[in-house]
Amino acid sequence: MSDDVRMTLDDVRVLARAVLRAAGLSAAHADAVAETMVAGERDGCRSHGVYRLLVAANSVAKGVVAPDAVPVVSEPARALVRVDGGGGFAQLAFERGRPLLAEKARAYGIAALALNNVVHFAALWPEVEALAEDGLVAIAVTPSHAWVAPAGGMQPVFGTNPIAFGWPRPGGHPFVFDFATSAVARGEIELHRRAGKPVPDDWGYDAGGQPTTDAAAVLDGAMRTFGGHKGSALAAMVELLAGPLIGDMTSRESIDADAGRGGSPIGGELIIAIDPAGFLGDAAAEHLARAEVMFAAIEAQGARLPSQRRYAARERSLAEGVVVPGALHREILALIPGEV
Amino acid sequence: MSDDVRMTLDDVRVLARAVLRAAGLSAAHADAVAETMVAGERDGCRSHGVYRLLVAANSVAKGVVAPDAVPVVSEPARALVRVDGGGGFAQLAFERGRPLLAEKARAYGIAALALNNVVHFAALWPEVEALAEDGLVAIAVTPSHAWVAPAGGMQPVFGTNPIAFGWPRPGGHPFVFDFATSAVARGEIELHRRAGKPVPDDWGYDAGGQPTTDAAAVLDGAMRTFGGHKGSALAAMVELLAGPLIGDMTSRESIDADAGRGGSPIGGELIIAIDPAGFLGDAAAEHLARAEVMFAAIEAQGARLPSQRRYAARERSLAEGVVVPGALHREILALIPGEV
Repeated sequence: MSDDVRMTLDDVRVLARAVLRAAGLSAAHADAVAETMVAGERDGCRSHGVYRLLVAANSVAKGVVAPDAVPVVSEPARALVRVDGGGGFAQLAFERGRPLLAEKARAYGIAALALNNVVHFAALWPEVEALAEDGLVAIAVTPSHAWVAPAGGMQPVFGTNPIAFGWPRPGGHPFVFDFATSAVARGEIELHRRAGKPVPDDWGYDAGGQPTTDAAAVLDGAMRTFGGHKGSALAAMVELLAGPLIGDMTSRESIDADAGRGGSPIGGELIIAIDPAGFLGDAAAEHLARAEVMFAAIEAQGARLPSQRRYAARERSLAEGVVVPGALHREILALIPGEV
Repeated sequence: MSDDVRMTLDDVRVLARAVLRAAGLSAAHADAVAETMVAGERDGCRSHGVYRLLVAANSVAKGVVAPDAVPVVSEPARALVRVDGGGGFAQLAFERGRPLLAEKARAYGIAALALNNVVHFAALWPEVEALAEDGLVAIAVTPSHAWVAPAGGMQPVFGTNPIAFGWPRPGGHPFVFDFATSAVARGEIELHRRAGKPVPDDWGYDAGGQPTTDAAAVLDGAMRTFGGHKGSALAAMVELLAGPLIGDMTSRESIDADAGRGGSPIGGELIIAIDPAGFLGDAAAEHLARAEVMFAAIEAQGARLPSQRRYAARERSLAEGVVVPGALHREILALIPGEV
């Protein structure tokens, strides 16, 4: 008999908020962070679902995150928005900056939002998807902790440095992708380590700079980027755009600031938003329809658009709820005083 | 005895202008296009040097390019610039739009330039490098002709869809990369075909959708993207940003419009420029210096920054000139009436 727990998405929301409040987050932060976990669980992204409650609680307990930070929104230039997250989780900072970013993108055609001094532990797709749902084209990037070696090197400089992109599709879910510029997600290597399984020898290097199949050695050494020197170039671009360009930390600076506490990366994020009506005016709908022709040409040959698996999981979850493994559910409940 | 021809960069410029004028380009177009060939030859990018004179002349002869198009600059939104290239080569359109793009990036913090209805046959790095030399951060993308299959498919949808990035480095050459999102450059496959050499079986598919080592079959079939589904997602992003978003053609539409003439891709290009002073104000220099720390961490482990080979070649070419193979030189001279 399975001890898995079937939950509605509202159950997940209530649980996540309770855990995050118990961990010490302010109500505003708990609500914002809970929504990304609901979204992850709903879309079948297990590693970004309620499992992350453990990660978030750990970051609060270690003092890495400011649990009641109040994000401060400013306008450093006419088409730029900055939110100083005050050391809190990124979600609330994004939420507070999002309306002004959208307003500026519509007013100027293109705009950018910098989140500064925020703690990252979630995927970027909820953010670009939200902007695309509002009819905007969005690109988001963020560094993390220095875990990834540049192509041609063996010492960590870059973070897993994801790039996310959202494109509005009238009448349907947006075209969204969000991937790490590292060869694989760090969590994937962690799963191999826990399972005692070797990793392919092209995932990373040990601390001595030698290729290795030992997952723990890669975690202590350096991961590789995806796509050779091209992926490495993109990883550098992410560092620059969401680090020095917005006055925030590189992945090396972030892991140095963590000082061995093992908390989530702290630093910045850059989000660029473009209004299709800016270049296209009244012809926007006609040109967005041409994008649909391209999507159809991809799907007609049996290739999958990014995020389609996520959207399929979403439909199922909305209808049937989600299933959380019993052990994980107990581990999460243990974070709420009086629940165990 | 070698019949290679040693030329100064001024010799190259004079030759390129003469060929392009003889091909029928207006003086403004000939000058703008010649500069990119001088830059390619100077930087050791043989495939983007004077060799491209043959490509450009072919596009003019085939009627693919408007040789005397006058680019028209407009401002569709406050932070957006559009240049309608009128079917001419992209270089002059970029040149005409560049000052206003830079002005808007400084005025608003971020701005974008769309080149519409232009013929592309050159690399994007000269453009992002020029913007970075002016102190701006720049991203440029363009579709091409549908030659590349999406990950999971085997039929061409995407072009080689390059992504270029430029970052200003005070006191030094900018950090610049420019790469195709296809697994390799199309010219690389063409070189294998000419040499009768097989290509690796992961470069592409034949027209029936089967992996093949036959270079000609890949050219008739479909190339792969770099980096699996991640590279494929980026290729789609390039199509969307520099196609429908700016009201211009996708790679499929471009190759359909070519109608078998074998001309260079015609369509659009998007360039985003960000002023570091926008987010950073007076602290820009201090934060750009932190980027230098990251570059040093990459180079200290023996890894190379993108474009370093190009900059090294540039130093040599400025000092010693360049060497053009005799056969190529003769082929180029044959394009000038009265020269042979």
